[in-house]
Amino acid sequence: MKKSFEEYIQETFASYRPGKLTEAMNYAISGGAHFRPELIFAVIKGFGFDEEDGFPAALALEMVHSYSLIQDDMPCMDNDELRRGKPSTHVAYGEDIALLASDALLTQAFGILAESPYDAEARLHMIADLSHLAGLGGMVYGQFLDVTQDSAAMQDREALNTLEDYKTGALFEAALLFGMYIAGDDSNMPFYEGLAVKIGRVFQLQDDLFDLTRTPEETGKTNSDERNNKATAFSLYTEEELRQQIASLFEDIDRDLANAPFDSVFLQKLIARMRDR
Amino acid sequence: MKKSFEEYIQETFASYRPGKLTEAMNYAISGGAHFRPELIFAVIKGFGFDEEDGFPAALALEMVHSYSLIQDDMPCMDNDELRRGKPSTHVAYGEDIALLASDALLTQAFGILAESPYDAEARLHMIADLSHLAGLGGMVYGQFLDVTQDSAAMQDREALNTLEDYKTGALFEAALLFGMYIAGDDSNMPFYEGLAVKIGRVFQLQDDLFDLTRTPEETGKTNSDERNNKATAFSLYTEEELRQQIASLFEDIDRDLANAPFDSVFLQKLIARMRDR
Repeated sequence: MKKSFEEYIQETFASYRPGKLTEAMNYAISGGAHFRPELIFAVIKGFGFDEEDGFPAALALEMVHSYSLIQDDMPCMDNDELRRGKPSTHVAYGEDIALLASDALLTQAFGILAESPYDAEARLHMIADLSHLAGLGGMVYGQFLDVTQDSAAMQDREALNTLEDYKTGALFEAALLFGMYIAGDDSNMPFYEGLAVKIGRVFQLQDDLFDLTRTPEETGKTNSDERNNKATAFSLYTEEELRQQIASLFEDIDRDLANAPFDSVFLQKLIARMRDR
Repeated sequence: MKKSFEEYIQETFASYRPGKLTEAMNYAISGGAHFRPELIFAVIKGFGFDEEDGFPAALALEMVHSYSLIQDDMPCMDNDELRRGKPSTHVAYGEDIALLASDALLTQAFGILAESPYDAEARLHMIADLSHLAGLGGMVYGQFLDVTQDSAAMQDREALNTLEDYKTGALFEAALLFGMYIAGDDSNMPFYEGLAVKIGRVFQLQDDLFDLTRTPEETGKTNSDERNNKATAFSLYTEEELRQQIASLFEDIDRDLANAPFDSVFLQKLIARMRDR
């Protein structure tokens, strides 16, 4: 019987020194939908690899995603007390331990990649790309745009797209690139990058839609954007426009997948899951 | 005329997207004594390399050190408003941008190592070791011990040593190991590890001594340990005992250096500078 990704995560955490710090890390990483890991798995399965081949890369990426969620929720950021239907990490463990758990998750992610079973060159590419896409060329920069946005940005669809490409799209890009490196196919970079932008945007637009059309009980988190006077798709689009945008992006993604440099049946299934979430 | 490490840092930052985020990163990294970089330089010069050969590794390590200082000073940690004679980063830029700058420094460090000019295997070793020593096997774990210490720890010299080995010694160990990997000498691991522990301890004992015997104007930082009821060497040793410990550690270091697997004249000079600081 094959090991699940969830079992792999728990095995890895069981190998860390027990205590409140690893408990808080585990708390933060638990309960995720694993969309970024699933993207890696879908790409490599399309090349004939097993899901398990993607576990180390997927765990590293999920750790980086989890670190960002811990910090996004902290009082000096969005100040959200609910995440995935349970108290945010800083509410459950205190701000100091939550911050250290986020640091440990980010730091550990790079070590996992460095010691993963992939080719040395593939590992170095993944580490360099993750550093860029999670940092100054991606997520951290997007979060910086988010916390420093002025009211002008709320009137500008292009600026909002840019912000969301950095903040959300970048880690989706990392996922597709990780799959690409594991499969050893680095001749189609523009395909992966273009697809990642579309998946990141549609994911973010869906989140914005859910924030406004679903209750915190349904989404498992509080909606702080309105309270914090942040731009979301809803300050720029009507619900109808938003639904249209989402549908149009899914069409673009389908077209991309029809021309994928690998068997895209696994990715099509994942996109269908995303469409129905 | 050769480039200085300081010029190399400024050149690197000039290549990043301008704005408040990189400004805050640069603010946090500026004004340091560069003891960790100097350790790398001293080791590789002892093997016949140029200081410049160590610049990428040294910058990565100094970035990780700087990220830790930003977070140490934040209100949810030590809540210190003065660092290196100027306002702490969160005082100068706000907590949100300070936190993002710390994230960007940590994240960027791993990318710099991944794209550095060293052998692929050396780069992967440095990334894996930095992940361990800055994370769960070192600095973050030490900071966790620090924020969760109870009053019993203040009565226990062994516990304080352990805390400081993790919190401070680990990055000194990373510095010596980086020098070792750059020089291609990985046959003497115990030598570097043993030396790092001693250098880390003496450095921390000196800091504790300065906190009590020097003014904030002289040290450039406020002393929050007493206010935060934290254990320091001073809660366990008299000033006389502390000075004796420091002298005895410097003697041990001298003995180590006499048996170094490289020409230790550069390291001796650096240790002399540390002794006189």
